[in-house]
Amino acid sequence: MARTISVELAGFTGLFRDLEEYVVSLDRVLSRIGAGEDPRILLEYVVEYGLPSRLAQAREFVGDSLERVIGAEALEEIAEQVEAYRDKK
Amino acid sequence: MARTISVELAGFTGLFRDLEEYVVSLDRVLSRIGAGEDPRILLEYVVEYGLPSRLAQAREFVGDSLERVIGAEALEEIAEQVEAYRDKK
Repeated sequence: MARTISVELAGFTGLFRDLEEYVVSLDRVLSRIGAGEDPRILLEYVVEYGLPSRLAQAREFVGDSLERVIGAEALEEIAEQVEAYRDKK
Repeated sequence: MARTISVELAGFTGLFRDLEEYVVSLDRVLSRIGAGEDPRILLEYVVEYGLPSRLAQAREFVGDSLERVIGAEALEEIAEQVEAYRDKK
């Protein structure tokens, strides 16, 4: 059996709610941009719906749960390996 | 003690990795837009990094884990209550 981790149910449910919202919203926003709307509506969505801080909160929740099992060092290592967006110029 | 849910560790770690990437990337993209860059770079990031399909995969993972504990009906109900982006016009 695959290794599992015990996660607080309320926080995990909140995570599902957020992801459901992001998926449905992005689909709508990208459809509208595809239909000719100003790409700026994506920025408006991201800012109005508070995605930066909500995603940061979700990362804290998942990271804290994970840290209790794998330890701070292993968590740090995973975070360091992530390849985030970079300026290509 | 708060109610907990058992979640597959590998998938949960992947979730952390994704969230870390989104938080760092959004911060960089929004900083650059704030500094005068074309807001279109947000759309480019979202598309190039495959956020719509990756967020949908994360939703499946979290939703499937949750469904095993709370059942399909309760999950559906949560999804229906989510207030996603809507056209304001």
